[in-house]
Amino acid sequence: MNEEVKNKLKKILPTNKLHFELSDRYSYSFDASFGEYLPEGVAQPSSAQEISEIVKLANQYGFPLYPRGSATSLSGGPLPVEGGLVLDMSQMRDKLIIDKENMIAITSPGVLTSDIHNEAEKAGLFYPPDPSSAHVSTIAGNILENSSGPKGLKYGTTKEYVIGMEVVTPTGEIVRVGGKTVKNVTGFDLTRLITGSEGLLGIVTEATLRLIPKPKDRKTMMATFHNPVDCGRAITKILSKGILPAAMELMDNACIRAVEHFEPSGLPVNAGALLILEVDGHPLALQEEIEQSREICEEIGALTIKVAESEKERNDIWTARKKVSPAITQLGPTKISEDATVPRSKIPEMMEKLNDIRDRYQLNLVVFGHAGDGNLHPNIITDKTNIEEMKRVEDAVGDIFQAALELGGTLSGEHGIGTLKAPYLEREYGKEGVALLKSIKHAWDPNNILNPGKMFAKEGQTKVVLT
Amino acid sequence: MNEEVKNKLKKILPTNKLHFELSDRYSYSFDASFGEYLPEGVAQPSSAQEISEIVKLANQYGFPLYPRGSATSLSGGPLPVEGGLVLDMSQMRDKLIIDKENMIAITSPGVLTSDIHNEAEKAGLFYPPDPSSAHVSTIAGNILENSSGPKGLKYGTTKEYVIGMEVVTPTGEIVRVGGKTVKNVTGFDLTRLITGSEGLLGIVTEATLRLIPKPKDRKTMMATFHNPVDCGRAITKILSKGILPAAMELMDNACIRAVEHFEPSGLPVNAGALLILEVDGHPLALQEEIEQSREICEEIGALTIKVAESEKERNDIWTARKKVSPAITQLGPTKISEDATVPRSKIPEMMEKLNDIRDRYQLNLVVFGHAGDGNLHPNIITDKTNIEEMKRVEDAVGDIFQAALELGGTLSGEHGIGTLKAPYLEREYGKEGVALLKSIKHAWDPNNILNPGKMFAKEGQTKVVLT
Repeated sequence: MNEEVKNKLKKILPTNKLHFELSDRYSYSFDASFGEYLPEGVAQPSSAQEISEIVKLANQYGFPLYPRGSATSLSGGPLPVEGGLVLDMSQMRDKLIIDKENMIAITSPGVLTSDIHNEAEKAGLFYPPDPSSAHVSTIAGNILENSSGPKGLKYGTTKEYVIGMEVVTPTGEIVRVGGKTVKNVTGFDLTRLITGSEGLLGIVTEATLRLIPKPKDRKTMMATFHNPVDCGRAITKILSKGILPAAMELMDNACIRAVEHFEPSGLPVNAGALLILEVDGHPLALQEEIEQSREICEEIGALTIKVAESEKERNDIWTARKKVSPAITQLGPTKISEDATVPRSKIPEMMEKLNDIRDRYQLNLVVFGHAGDGNLHPNIITDKTNIEEMKRVEDAVGDIFQAALELGGTLSGEHGIGTLKAPYLEREYGKEGVALLKSIKHAWDPNNILNPGKMFAKEGQTKVVLT
Repeated sequence: MNEEVKNKLKKILPTNKLHFELSDRYSYSFDASFGEYLPEGVAQPSSAQEISEIVKLANQYGFPLYPRGSATSLSGGPLPVEGGLVLDMSQMRDKLIIDKENMIAITSPGVLTSDIHNEAEKAGLFYPPDPSSAHVSTIAGNILENSSGPKGLKYGTTKEYVIGMEVVTPTGEIVRVGGKTVKNVTGFDLTRLITGSEGLLGIVTEATLRLIPKPKDRKTMMATFHNPVDCGRAITKILSKGILPAAMELMDNACIRAVEHFEPSGLPVNAGALLILEVDGHPLALQEEIEQSREICEEIGALTIKVAESEKERNDIWTARKKVSPAITQLGPTKISEDATVPRSKIPEMMEKLNDIRDRYQLNLVVFGHAGDGNLHPNIITDKTNIEEMKRVEDAVGDIFQAALELGGTLSGEHGIGTLKAPYLEREYGKEGVALLKSIKHAWDPNNILNPGKMFAKEGQTKVVLT
């Protein structure tokens, strides 16, 4: 980034919002996934207008822009893989309006998702998408990655709640897409096209989110099973009773062991699967639904069943799930977190395939995930300095993707493609499908300014970037 | 369409699936909106492969293609405005699989939406989108127009249920987008981009729909109010109690009068607004919700309140709503049906503006609609042979759009842009927004083969095509 560009940037932003020192740039060189890439500079814009001017400058001088929220991405979303300028969007967080009457939220891009949860609840409303990073991740990051968490089955994903946006396009135009109404079929659905576009098609500078009335109550239970097949049967039977849980979280044996080893709390370490089920809605309905769910788990031969009778007991149950991340982080310095997703009925088969992959490559692989929507999280715990092991990890990751696709699933349920799944995109989309994706990117971003190096593999690239 | 092209088409399709006689072509020259346009031919394909070959032929010889389901469009969606070949997709209806375990339906494009409702219900499942034409409209037509009906507030629109498709692109490639899982963030969301694209971006040859458990029960009530403001207050108060009705249908005074005049059933003809409210879910919750809703309507001073105590009484309530269409059809030979949509809190204001427009242009304008999601249906009853009146209609329609936009709403909640709203698109999107839409169309359909003449106005066109 030459002095001329830096000087022009200084005309757009105050000096204290521009950073070119190595120490500053280093802070922006990684995310929660894998790999370090040093940007040439960092800008902290505070308005759509500033961003528009920066984008136009980038087009004029041909340097890449990397929008970034809180960098909790597990797929490399914000990594500045080709240098250029990082746009730190986390500073744009001055607006969060809850419009109770229209049940919508209007928010700046850098607002934390958990702040939206909290403000909505104060108004008796509810914003369902709940990625586990919600307390640190920004709403625009969630939107651009369509990251969603456990409530997909009942409530859908982030995309189902974004109804309008202000966006700066890859050529620097400020446009509004969608609006304030759930129903809107004016033009193609650019709102949904940009949601989940991983920052390749535009920079979100404001979002309008649909909210729903806050469920009146919730009931939570935990059950353990001999094996994932039994657990899968219980899930199917519960759903076919007409019960639609807000969350159905699954942990495999390796995951149960890791959590119990991390902090013993009496989980059955020989159980093949652990299920946390939460129903929400009207209190009278819940009582019946949780009772029916318990009966079904009993019939199927659950090892243990625990229905929370108080808020404390509910927290205890969720603590098992929340310990997963710290527990597995203790197992090794490097964590590769995947999100291959399969049709729900294929979960037991996918768990089998993941077991095979664990054995075949002799890796520390634990599986947890959102069983209701088939969204599994196989996590490989490894050490990136161990080149030999990383090669096995690389092959195992390829096999995980292949297994998901063979079962009619998808590479990514909620983490995105980013850098880490780009070489596999064509396996799911085919050549023609990838051509359609690229043609939109090219039409909107002819100079390839926004987040280049993501989603699409380099010519001839067949592996991920782990080794 | 010259003989060479006809002969090539005969190599793709059996002769009895191709129609070039005037009488046949005439049957395909109109839809449920406005205007007649004679196609040069009609093809009734039965596979994606046949469609792919036809599309490639169209690109080679440069003739337009007009995909068409049951032609219930109210915006001109399937009208062959530039001649060419109509693709009658209603014959492709051999597949309708309900996968109970994964709660999805896999369907051919020509399957009727009501058949999906019925088959899903047999499996204890539920496909919520329910346009009033569901008993005659095809699922692919619903998808490409994102037509949705009364349940948008609680259940979202068609788009929220389409999770995968097989599509023939405008250049004749057969691609699969999305898949069988609710969570899928692999690549841009082409499924949602194509849903609601009005046939400009691809021809749907198979769709995968998300289903949900069938609600266990429902309760229905009807209330009438002095004016729309009172009705709006009742709606807001009900929602802020945490009650999320499956439907909240609104009729204005002109609409009540039309229905009562058509077939007297004791509706209060002086009421300013009629509200039909339906809640669904667990029976225990419903009892409380309908009681609370009734109390709220009483507090606000409803003129009449009727809670259905039996399925017969429920049907009686809905009959009032279902009579709207036949009742207003009796008022005149031509019906212009709009779907301008505003944020819910703006409904009373929008009703005021519609009253003004009715008075200003001295037109027969009745208003009904889906109050929960702000989706109103102002219908103008007129006579297309009355040129003088049609000019007033034209101006009134423009004012309706402008009113919706001024209140933060959108041109179209569920009918689409088609021919009838094209000149107004830029008012909502701005020049830059329209350029983004067009750039996708151009990138995917460089020869402008699929459904040309829709969504985008001709250079200099400022009015709709009514006069």
